Amino acid sequence: MPHLLSTTAADFETRFSAFLGLKREVSEDVDATVRAIIDDVRQNGDEALARLTASFDRLDFADTPMRVGAGEVAAATDRIDAGTRAALELARDRIRAHHERQLPADDAYTDALGVTLGSRWTAVESVGLYVPGGTAAYPSSVLMNAVPAVVAGVARIVMVVPAPGGVLNPLVLAAADLAGVTEIYRIGGAQAVAALAYGTETIQPVAKIVGPGNAYVAAAKRRVFGTVGIDMIAGPSEVLVVADGANDPDWIAADLLAQAEHDEAAQSILITDDESLGEAVAGAVERQLKTLPRADTAAASWRDFGGIVTVGDIHSDATVALIDRIAAEHLELACDEADALARRVSNAGAIFIGRHTPEVIGDYVGGSNHVLPTARSARFSSGLSVMDFVKRTSILKLGPEQLRALGPAAIALAEAEGLGAHARSVSIRMNQGGPDGR
Amino acid sequence: MPHLLSTTAADFETRFSAFLGLKREVSEDVDATVRAIIDDVRQNGDEALARLTASFDRLDFADTPMRVGAGEVAAATDRIDAGTRAALELARDRIRAHHERQLPADDAYTDALGVTLGSRWTAVESVGLYVPGGTAAYPSSVLMNAVPAVVAGVARIVMVVPAPGGVLNPLVLAAADLAGVTEIYRIGGAQAVAALAYGTETIQPVAKIVGPGNAYVAAAKRRVFGTVGIDMIAGPSEVLVVADGANDPDWIAADLLAQAEHDEAAQSILITDDESLGEAVAGAVERQLKTLPRADTAAASWRDFGGIVTVGDIHSDATVALIDRIAAEHLELACDEADALARRVSNAGAIFIGRHTPEVIGDYVGGSNHVLPTARSARFSSGLSVMDFVKRTSILKLGPEQLRALGPAAIALAEAEGLGAHARSVSIRMNQGGPDGR
Repeated sequence: MPHLLSTTAADFETRFSAFLGLKREVSEDVDATVRAIIDDVRQNGDEALARLTASFDRLDFADTPMRVGAGEVAAATDRIDAGTRAALELARDRIRAHHERQLPADDAYTDALGVTLGSRWTAVESVGLYVPGGTAAYPSSVLMNAVPAVVAGVARIVMVVPAPGGVLNPLVLAAADLAGVTEIYRIGGAQAVAALAYGTETIQPVAKIVGPGNAYVAAAKRRVFGTVGIDMIAGPSEVLVVADGANDPDWIAADLLAQAEHDEAAQSILITDDESLGEAVAGAVERQLKTLPRADTAAASWRDFGGIVTVGDIHSDATVALIDRIAAEHLELACDEADALARRVSNAGAIFIGRHTPEVIGDYVGGSNHVLPTARSARFSSGLSVMDFVKRTSILKLGPEQLRALGPAAIALAEAEGLGAHARSVSIRMNQGGPDGR
Repeated sequence: MPHLLSTTAADFETRFSAFLGLKREVSEDVDATVRAIIDDVRQNGDEALARLTASFDRLDFADTPMRVGAGEVAAATDRIDAGTRAALELARDRIRAHHERQLPADDAYTDALGVTLGSRWTAVESVGLYVPGGTAAYPSSVLMNAVPAVVAGVARIVMVVPAPGGVLNPLVLAAADLAGVTEIYRIGGAQAVAALAYGTETIQPVAKIVGPGNAYVAAAKRRVFGTVGIDMIAGPSEVLVVADGANDPDWIAADLLAQAEHDEAAQSILITDDESLGEAVAGAVERQLKTLPRADTAAASWRDFGGIVTVGDIHSDATVALIDRIAAEHLELACDEADALARRVSNAGAIFIGRHTPEVIGDYVGGSNHVLPTARSARFSSGLSVMDFVKRTSILKLGPEQLRALGPAAIALAEAEGLGAHARSVSIRMNQGGPDGR
């Protein structure tokens, strides 16, 4: 059974806080191991990559080159069936079209004093894309990470993906090819992150690393942060479905299970103002679990972290406040006047409006990005976008007249802060005096 | 003597790489201490804050309240002289005017299939602003951190500032008042960061923490990242001045010293195509050091980390490549055709164009933000802006027709990824079939 809460219960606040605070990730302390691996790659480069890949992935670069060749990528793309390929191309095109709207505009203007100010955006020069191996290797995630980088104008996109026993998912190679990835290497784990951050004889370092990974990859990204940029550290996936009584319980159950099947630590929450719908959905979940390939994972997630919250009115300010506290990665509004409710929500990675917008559409072909803030971080962060692959440079330009106008205030503040050289760097230009400018 | 390099030297690449790689910060390992302090504050709240503040800051909250009262703030604002106050107000107004141009626009559109997509921006609900105590307490930094938050629409801005022995810098209180800070507490160090992230009986938690601090503050911010958002971890300040022969060596020397006086770990670099200017600047630095209040700090920084790089032509592609490799926090272009050169640079936190735009103007009254990426992170990150205080929510809305159009591709990709519940969540809405939607 999932957690059952009702706002009318006397202990609701206590139980809801406890539910929000549920620890869903066992934070393995892998930091010492990761540090050693990173140092090894920094010191020994390709040799370390070969040695670590042989031991972790049972793959010998003497037999299989570290870099995936163009022919191999093309062969993989040819091997996938036409339907899947067409679906990948549709997804790519829709992601591209949506993300092209995110390209920031430069700004340049001259103010009343004649000071020229501006903000100029440029693409990050090179990006590393981490792709997990095994079952978590999702071609859709390759598109969601690589396409925004291509749209931003990133010249070099380097994908790393572990190939345990030499096996690569052809769909992942195909997605990389369709997205515009420029280099692919058969490496993974902390050693791949280290290679991207510091470079080796074969791999040139990148400026930023994005993409999901296990605890070792996450720890490695945290450790190289500063040397390179990193994206958010993604946690297990979540969905919050807000549903009134006028829903088919099976539709809602399917949406809750679509998150739950990702990971035993995933979280699916239903908020409803119709207690009987809640009960019907709970029943539908149990029925649908019987015919689900990943039933064990989904059942564990629903049992341990699933929740059904009964509220008085899903359109009340109190419910909006609950929605904002949960700050879900995915928020589905399966109710009447869903648009109006959506406008009142502040904290959500993505909002899926209406009964015919299952979150899954956003995972694949909606066009918006499926890399979204988890674990309540939608309170302060946004999903992946073109903005993650560009950076802004401020521009300032004064002439002698503007310097005379602003100089005295700058000197006053510099002196108030006890920074004499700051004051001098301005004053020396105002009164072309002797060496010390006074 | 600073580091002297010339692109014509045979060993230039080796020496330049070593110069770029100079370790300017001794990374204290304070992590264990910081972890204990954070746990203490999480468990003991206000009592821990009082105990830690008594021991670290020699301040007893029995005598002086933890929260700074409105009367105390008003008194501090009244106490500062009219000139400094006017300068702070000019700085605030110019920062506000510039940052108002950074407010992102929402986007909403319907594509050819009739799918509605959008991006909606909302302000972070609450922000904590860390302000260091002692000499590093700069009122200008309070403005640079708080004003963008106010412009973004952040409702609650909580400033924490240690008051060693009870002493607070009235200019910092005045700047907070002028900027629109809503709460101020007399706490600092890792305990202040913990209080902002997790809350105590007195302090409500915030969603994001910004502002500079020492090694303990930086380690605490890294540790609470995820629970709350944080800004960049700022390193020692840097300036790169690109100057041709037509400059007054004293002007350039003053600019280099303005960075050097911040911190012994600050870095000032001159790139010039006129060897004699380089020598003249080196001489001017030595002369100006004699009359500088913070001469010891500036001299140490210039000696250990300062550099003069002589190049063939400052407008060559090779020089632009050098500028991009340095990726300086502050880039001054004191040369002819500075605008054209600025347009060719990709990596810089801020560019100051022309001989009459000393970087110091940007520290105070230019209007652009002085919180900028350090330690070469301009390769992948931007200075502080309104964007750091807002977050984006993606919006997606389909009707039955759009679901039928996009559904098959979503189902194909879900099945390719082995996610049966994903496929079902779409298919069940397409053919209103039985419980499992097939």
